[in-house]
Amino acid sequence: MRSFLLVGQSNMCGRGFIGDVPEIRNMRCFTFRNGHWGVMTEPIHVDAPVFGDLYGDLRSGTCLAASFADAVQRRQGGEVGLIPCAVGGTTIAQWQPGEPIYDNAVFQANLARRSSELAGILFHQGCQDTGDASSAEGHHDLALRMLRALRRDVGAEGLPLLIGSLGTFREGLLPYLGPVEAGLRRIAGELPRAGFVSAEGLTRNPDGVHLDSRSLRTFGLRYFEEYIRLEGAEADMEGKGL
Amino acid sequence: MRSFLLVGQSNMCGRGFIGDVPEIRNMRCFTFRNGHWGVMTEPIHVDAPVFGDLYGDLRSGTCLAASFADAVQRRQGGEVGLIPCAVGGTTIAQWQPGEPIYDNAVFQANLARRSSELAGILFHQGCQDTGDASSAEGHHDLALRMLRALRRDVGAEGLPLLIGSLGTFREGLLPYLGPVEAGLRRIAGELPRAGFVSAEGLTRNPDGVHLDSRSLRTFGLRYFEEYIRLEGAEADMEGKGL
Repeated sequence: MRSFLLVGQSNMCGRGFIGDVPEIRNMRCFTFRNGHWGVMTEPIHVDAPVFGDLYGDLRSGTCLAASFADAVQRRQGGEVGLIPCAVGGTTIAQWQPGEPIYDNAVFQANLARRSSELAGILFHQGCQDTGDASSAEGHHDLALRMLRALRRDVGAEGLPLLIGSLGTFREGLLPYLGPVEAGLRRIAGELPRAGFVSAEGLTRNPDGVHLDSRSLRTFGLRYFEEYIRLEGAEADMEGKGL
Repeated sequence: MRSFLLVGQSNMCGRGFIGDVPEIRNMRCFTFRNGHWGVMTEPIHVDAPVFGDLYGDLRSGTCLAASFADAVQRRQGGEVGLIPCAVGGTTIAQWQPGEPIYDNAVFQANLARRSSELAGILFHQGCQDTGDASSAEGHHDLALRMLRALRRDVGAEGLPLLIGSLGTFREGLLPYLGPVEAGLRRIAGELPRAGFVSAEGLTRNPDGVHLDSRSLRTFGLRYFEEYIRLEGAEADMEGKGL
């Protein structure tokens, strides 16, 4: 089984409304929870309530990783496992080595490696750091540091790393979006085997912040296309003896 | 915050149908997931699908730990955290130290200890080992070994340990239930600060195996009563200078 580590905040967790898009049922895709692989079903992350109205209509739901995993499995075969470690509302400071959510992600990835080959990292984080100038300014360096450390700590410095664009928002909603987004794009160029995934044209829930189910399906396929591109680039380098 | 580690198999995970009983909403009860405390909502364990019919009507649902946590919080005050680490369908052999689900439980408990005081372990396991004579016969020793190791590995050898009865089943359904149940009851006497929680009169889902929502609420309150009894016994010993 090839496995993929999922890290970041709410748009990686997935807040798409269940039922807005058809269920993806692929008996060769799995989710890793509590040391155990179970057949993939949504919600994949359960960091927010699934039922009820504790936070209005904000619930754990559709996740971009579902269409990603399904595409990897159907196009490349084998079994595909997801390791869901994203947590909604988290800043890049909370994702630094030594912080609980970072340490958990490293532990889960290494636990999953006992029974799978870790094949990539899917990252989507940044919105939480767009509220003020100093958070936004510090984001690039902290994200770069965290992603470097993460690949090292899961034993694979050249692991394909897919970084998602934050996309566009209603003007003024995330005041310092620009510098955070630019920093993420820069990281995809600074790190080896890293790719940037476009969020162009994606649409959101009525809250204006969280991607809707249909867009999450599309976004997952774009993560897959970028994964294929990184794999191709690698194969190309290997072919040339680089 | 006082926290409680939840380990075992499906009747600890909870397969009660959501909606059969009123939601428990207590903003001072939390669930630990991916290194983060979120307000407690059900399902607390998500080891099985939440939606759909992948396994018929077997879904992650109501959990005995919800009424337990709510009772601890309302009767004793403070904040209460749950650390859900049970996995459905697991044998006691899969829960031995060095196995992934055991190692995960130890990691989660220790990660939660950074931000809470670990106050007890809730255990419900055994059904999966009632199918043949040799599994049933070996269950007592393996469970005793696992529970001793678990308390040691989470840094609290005298941690209150609550062991749930498997209850009664339709005749012949779990052929070697008797010896496993007897072994569990024996362990509660063999280990310090351990208690046995009765499942008398509890009822099940149509599958005949999983406790229904109403019974899970009751079972959680019985776990709480046993927890109180263990605490009282401790206070009594301390009072006598023992």
